[in-house]
Amino acid sequence: MDYHFSDRVKALKPSAIREIFKYAADPEVISLSAGNPAPEAFPVEAIRRCSDDLLREQPIDALQYSVTEGLPALREDVTAFLQKHCGIHTPGDSVLITSGAQQIMDLFGKSVLNEGDTVVCEEPSFIGALNSFRSYHAVLKGVPMQEDGMDLTKLEDILKSDRKVQFIYTIPNFQNPTGLTTSWEKRRGIYDLAKKYDVLILEDNPYGDLRFAGENIPSIKTLDTEGRVLYSGTFSKTISPGMRVGFAAGGSTLLQKMVVCKQGSDVHTNIWSQHVIHRFLHGWDFEKHLCGLRKIYAKKYAVAEKALQETAPLLQYRPIQGGLFIWCTLPASIPMIDYCKQAVLHKVCVVPGNAFLTDENTPCQSFRINYSSPTDEDLARGISILGKLAADWPV
Amino acid sequence: MDYHFSDRVKALKPSAIREIFKYAADPEVISLSAGNPAPEAFPVEAIRRCSDDLLREQPIDALQYSVTEGLPALREDVTAFLQKHCGIHTPGDSVLITSGAQQIMDLFGKSVLNEGDTVVCEEPSFIGALNSFRSYHAVLKGVPMQEDGMDLTKLEDILKSDRKVQFIYTIPNFQNPTGLTTSWEKRRGIYDLAKKYDVLILEDNPYGDLRFAGENIPSIKTLDTEGRVLYSGTFSKTISPGMRVGFAAGGSTLLQKMVVCKQGSDVHTNIWSQHVIHRFLHGWDFEKHLCGLRKIYAKKYAVAEKALQETAPLLQYRPIQGGLFIWCTLPASIPMIDYCKQAVLHKVCVVPGNAFLTDENTPCQSFRINYSSPTDEDLARGISILGKLAADWPV
Repeated sequence: MDYHFSDRVKALKPSAIREIFKYAADPEVISLSAGNPAPEAFPVEAIRRCSDDLLREQPIDALQYSVTEGLPALREDVTAFLQKHCGIHTPGDSVLITSGAQQIMDLFGKSVLNEGDTVVCEEPSFIGALNSFRSYHAVLKGVPMQEDGMDLTKLEDILKSDRKVQFIYTIPNFQNPTGLTTSWEKRRGIYDLAKKYDVLILEDNPYGDLRFAGENIPSIKTLDTEGRVLYSGTFSKTISPGMRVGFAAGGSTLLQKMVVCKQGSDVHTNIWSQHVIHRFLHGWDFEKHLCGLRKIYAKKYAVAEKALQETAPLLQYRPIQGGLFIWCTLPASIPMIDYCKQAVLHKVCVVPGNAFLTDENTPCQSFRINYSSPTDEDLARGISILGKLAADWPV
Repeated sequence: MDYHFSDRVKALKPSAIREIFKYAADPEVISLSAGNPAPEAFPVEAIRRCSDDLLREQPIDALQYSVTEGLPALREDVTAFLQKHCGIHTPGDSVLITSGAQQIMDLFGKSVLNEGDTVVCEEPSFIGALNSFRSYHAVLKGVPMQEDGMDLTKLEDILKSDRKVQFIYTIPNFQNPTGLTTSWEKRRGIYDLAKKYDVLILEDNPYGDLRFAGENIPSIKTLDTEGRVLYSGTFSKTISPGMRVGFAAGGSTLLQKMVVCKQGSDVHTNIWSQHVIHRFLHGWDFEKHLCGLRKIYAKKYAVAEKALQETAPLLQYRPIQGGLFIWCTLPASIPMIDYCKQAVLHKVCVVPGNAFLTDENTPCQSFRINYSSPTDEDLARGISILGKLAADWPV
């Protein structure tokens, strides 16, 4: 039958990345398109033992309905972690456990966006978040990314001229897709502008724990004295994305509204996984685990960098200090979309850069590669295929 | 700071049931207010072994990102189960795995409801679904429940006069909160009316597998030849609600739109739990497990019925044939809300019936009790306290 879809979803398209996954499912294709943590980064044995102990000791707690806000003990863990690792401690703030950080985008968008409201985001930015905001009929306005973060002049231009801006969406560490990190000066600048123009900030930090070079930069949330910043974190990159456990920290009035939305979305986050993560954080050395992750990613990134330099000199890329992504830019003579399509035919899958733009039709010469999921061999081979494809491109 | 919430969530209130849970958390209070499966109904040992095998044999599959539609093997299991148990097999239909059945309410509402559209529901009905539809600014119109389901004359009156109806929401088996089951004649009637007035049906069947008396009645979905009915099912009542795994079956065009919404909501459902359920369905005798559940619920319901008859004769109740809830009605001389408040002071927690109405201010003499979660002793004692409270009520 003919369905009459709501206006808000009529224009929504499946994520370009998800569509590309269809090619990536071909076992002959080297996928550099996912955002998956390295398989060797999962603490499998620890998780198995935490889960086994849990089901022997507290089976009903692990399997029964639970509260929407999240396991109280895990919320305390998150509070302690944020204070220790990020210096985040705002009186009156609270913590909500979510079904992955993606749900924070959804619940926050649902709570604060009316139709036609504006979200200011980095350009390019994380497609999953942009699509979530679009599903609430928001207007997205992009601020070009510079080496040290958003162009603050352009950010202020938008804030000054558009009174419908509800929030600024930023990924300050190892941004998806560019891998860029926002400097401390720009973090302060973003916060000051948000205050000046009275808008909220959604600070999305999925990759901050995966820094393998350079120095940590404090989060924007550390500047927040009034609940202006909603901080979004996740265990997806440090423990397991399949468990779907994220956490939001922010003003309690805001979080209470998000809790009401979450009741209607999925009642609560998988409680078994919440208990397992709580046990892992206590029974195992999480700091040591994070150090191990950073070593894994440093090593894998070195493989990618060597391959880029030695086998793909035509691809310009920005060196990264952490996270999962490398942003590559083609010479002006090679049309990016055609190149990405040819790459798939050569059995290498990357994500075309325009997928991350507020308007997909804007010209773009870049694409995103992920270095964490493939084996070292596939990673080097995939990059060399990309390099050869660029070198052989007919001019 | 002062947050500017979206219009859609401004009026949303925390679920009355969730609020009552705060009292229920007091260990001295006997909670007859939850909708929890009986703790003894969980197949703990089977789940523990399925999970342990999974993490030994396929750890990365269990912990890595996965596809939004759900684990393909589990989608096949659901298709086979629906065909065998419910006679549901519609060509062109498809199955989507969700984060509990609550997410089906959310994704379906998001996909088809514009602001001001109408949802026709049973009166009273499941508060979690109603709140989800409210969050998309829908207008709820209730059709009074009769012993055998919705009043079809009133249903047609609404469909005839209101051209903004998008769908009919119904829980045909052991309805929440009344425990009533819709007859086959009325199921046909609802389907015929939906067809006549070209509206969709959301058939919510969380309790159908928990029938301990009477004969199964085919689902409305078995009548569907055109994708008009979205069927909502869940493993929450048969395996574990803490895992948050539900499933929707319906027209593939509709489900594709819901998949795009789910990408923005939580990417995918906890994949570990999906694998565990798939293994449980294959490695263990699910039919036997369901038989065991029905025995547990029959026995517990007998305890409740005996207590109601012997110790609470002033409470009128409707005998049930399955599900989790009993709907009790007070004599006209006892004000229901005051009675429920007094019950909490007497350490028994129930849900006031007006919480399930489309307009909470409508007069209501009924309240909902759950017989599945408390121990037999607490159940009998709780009901006798309710009975004494009614008998002693000052006139």
